[in-house]
Amino acid sequence: MASDLLYERLAERLRHQIQRGTLRAGERLPSLRRLGRDQRISLATAVEAYLQLEREGLIEARPRSGYYVRAPAAPMPRASARHRARAPQPIRNPALLGVLDVLGRCDLISLHAATPAPSLLPTAALAAAASRVMRRNAQAALSYAIPQGLAALRERIAQRYVQCGVDVDPDEIVITAGAMEAISLALRTVARAGDVVLVETPTYYGLLQAVSEQGLRVIEVPNRPGLGIDPDRLSELLERHAVRAAVLVPNFNNPVGSLTSDEAKRAIVAACAAHGTVVIEDDLYGELSYSGERPSPLRRYDERGGVITCGSYSKMLTPGLRVGWMLGGRWAPALLRAKCFSTVATSTLSQLTIVEYLARHDFERGLRRLRRELAVNAQRYREAIALHWPQGTCVSAPAGGMALWIELPPQIEGQAVFEAAMARGIGILPGHLFSNRGDYGHHLRLSCGQPWGEPVETALRTVGALAGDLAG
Amino acid sequence: MASDLLYERLAERLRHQIQRGTLRAGERLPSLRRLGRDQRISLATAVEAYLQLEREGLIEARPRSGYYVRAPAAPMPRASARHRARAPQPIRNPALLGVLDVLGRCDLISLHAATPAPSLLPTAALAAAASRVMRRNAQAALSYAIPQGLAALRERIAQRYVQCGVDVDPDEIVITAGAMEAISLALRTVARAGDVVLVETPTYYGLLQAVSEQGLRVIEVPNRPGLGIDPDRLSELLERHAVRAAVLVPNFNNPVGSLTSDEAKRAIVAACAAHGTVVIEDDLYGELSYSGERPSPLRRYDERGGVITCGSYSKMLTPGLRVGWMLGGRWAPALLRAKCFSTVATSTLSQLTIVEYLARHDFERGLRRLRRELAVNAQRYREAIALHWPQGTCVSAPAGGMALWIELPPQIEGQAVFEAAMARGIGILPGHLFSNRGDYGHHLRLSCGQPWGEPVETALRTVGALAGDLAG
Repeated sequence: MASDLLYERLAERLRHQIQRGTLRAGERLPSLRRLGRDQRISLATAVEAYLQLEREGLIEARPRSGYYVRAPAAPMPRASARHRARAPQPIRNPALLGVLDVLGRCDLISLHAATPAPSLLPTAALAAAASRVMRRNAQAALSYAIPQGLAALRERIAQRYVQCGVDVDPDEIVITAGAMEAISLALRTVARAGDVVLVETPTYYGLLQAVSEQGLRVIEVPNRPGLGIDPDRLSELLERHAVRAAVLVPNFNNPVGSLTSDEAKRAIVAACAAHGTVVIEDDLYGELSYSGERPSPLRRYDERGGVITCGSYSKMLTPGLRVGWMLGGRWAPALLRAKCFSTVATSTLSQLTIVEYLARHDFERGLRRLRRELAVNAQRYREAIALHWPQGTCVSAPAGGMALWIELPPQIEGQAVFEAAMARGIGILPGHLFSNRGDYGHHLRLSCGQPWGEPVETALRTVGALAGDLAG
Repeated sequence: MASDLLYERLAERLRHQIQRGTLRAGERLPSLRRLGRDQRISLATAVEAYLQLEREGLIEARPRSGYYVRAPAAPMPRASARHRARAPQPIRNPALLGVLDVLGRCDLISLHAATPAPSLLPTAALAAAASRVMRRNAQAALSYAIPQGLAALRERIAQRYVQCGVDVDPDEIVITAGAMEAISLALRTVARAGDVVLVETPTYYGLLQAVSEQGLRVIEVPNRPGLGIDPDRLSELLERHAVRAAVLVPNFNNPVGSLTSDEAKRAIVAACAAHGTVVIEDDLYGELSYSGERPSPLRRYDERGGVITCGSYSKMLTPGLRVGWMLGGRWAPALLRAKCFSTVATSTLSQLTIVEYLARHDFERGLRRLRRELAVNAQRYREAIALHWPQGTCVSAPAGGMALWIELPPQIEGQAVFEAAMARGIGILPGHLFSNRGDYGHHLRLSCGQPWGEPVETALRTVGALAGDLAG
């Protein structure tokens, strides 16, 4: 307790020195040992203070060298940055690269992919819809759609938001190849290399990757299991840094599955508006609440058109058709331009198939079934983990979506469990993928999108046993 | 009088290059003799242009050395530059914005979209293929494909290149949502904001847009009707500038329809390799040679894996399914990463539909028909233009693809003809879209993708009459 205060105070002092310029960009900070000795504090306290400043983006660790004051948020020195920037940007968390190998494998028991099993989705109805489109409207389905996306689809999407109390105009919607394209285009439209972007921790590795590929710098706000995004901490960070955009997942964050309260959402949107920070909201799981109640997107509290809400049919109907969207607000024209000169337009056949499905089927009814099944899966998976995994394992209690966030006992490395599971043909993901800095070394993320049954139960029992072995 | 105009125009062009940074402070300008030769102007005119710029303080003469770009009077204010960079990047050629409106209209006689009419494409066979996929394989078609794209499709694409003498490994191919995504990802992977990229002039406005959205700077190498890319000029430019990437369309450049010779291709690849310039090749029209002979892509002459070749089924089978590719060479792993965290994967239904089509139909036979029809269209369109358009109109004789590049008599503005045609429900594009600087003010681009017939004939006659009226 006392040490908490000590490291906070130390961090505060160093922060001031950096902000005042007493400690300057590029300057090496005292070694941890030296700092401990000079300040008469424990090494642990010194480490805590430096980690805090590192999280805030004020200092950085350089391997085998020590801690250095980072260059300020603002403009990269042109000439030198240019040369450095030339090489393909290294990814900070090298583990992110390994994800591609896992995503490319179809032979795994799929506890790694955050996608509902085909049996939970209206596969037959969608297949029939696609065939009908091809029978009646092949010429249109095989021609370019307009870049913005089919009006009939945009109207459906707008209606759905209106039903949950959000005023959306079909004309501000741009259809994308999934939510990932939406987020990637939004980031590219609002931010430039070197800008600071706020993300949650933990958060979806794809967001981190998109941020990293664009040469953006990151600060992190915690997303707490059961609580969601901390609006006070977010406000503090916005006070302290010039944050260009905040990429947030208030509804069933992947991986922790938390729901941010309406009150917190309102505060978050207000704080971002006050600081000129654009909100890019990933509302991918918003419709997948276990309680059945559709939580508001941040967009609901937006009065200035400064929130870009991204969504997709990938988790509700089908990932394979690649249909998502963005509610552009005042950014809509710029987002449309970005879309047009990135992938021109989204597959017309995909769009028409979804329009046809929505016209003939009760979307809400299908969603109800999906939500129910995911809630049941989450519960069963959690029970199996409680039963078969090493003592001291904690598992999140998600409020929606399909991610389970597992904290292992401290002596077990998530990466080791991941590798052991892969060797047995079971796909799971190590927790450190969900952090820009490789935190969460003792975490795992599982998806509960596969229906409960013998293969899943066996897989969970196997991974639990592997984790137990690794505990030694 | 005439010389006044010439030197003014030349000075204007150089002024722009300096202001935009294409010509940079300290850089040596071409010698007067060289300038005269390159621009086909008299020595006196070249002198006049340089004197003018010297008077303006933009360049300076250094004794026995030549003319140099002067350093700007004062450094750019840093803070303001940052604020400027924050806002969505303005598009340099404001006319590019208008393209979106045209592309979004379905009610025009389509002489503007560089896409074959559905009647020239195997619409029924593709529709049947999609229905078969959905009947037999709906579950796979609606699930995520692996980010790299289906192996069966990559093998087909590799085979096709092997047939035309290019050694391609399916493992270096990444499937994309059309060639535009491929080019956009390639640019993002190899270049960083502020880098210099070489493009052709004239060139496809989508390339210019992608380059502009990424904050890249541009230098231009002429693509000459009937001749293609000038390898000598390209080499000179690479000598003079640090060019990160060259985005080239050697086969049937859009809009001029020219074919760059094999000899020139070899020289271009060698020059780029020597200067460390990555080649991003847009081979979108490579299969659409009117002679029937498939010209080599630049990739054929690449010995170091430094050429990224982008292609697509959009102009050969269907644009609506959004399936393209890149041959990544040594960039393949980085390109795959970029794809994964941009649109995750390409529509599985789209990919499977094309695989199914290729398995059951003679692709080459369909292509033969398409090439023949485009060649006939091009000829008929050209005859109609010769017949009905104002005297002094020149129209390109493309060797493949579907673009016609039209030079109007100097008193007629392309933009005015474009607007008048739009008002009559006829879609064409003004030439200045095809230049980063808004050159080609007296040009138009037409597409000959619509089959010859009364509507096209009437439209061409109407546009010719409108152009005649505008000539006064």
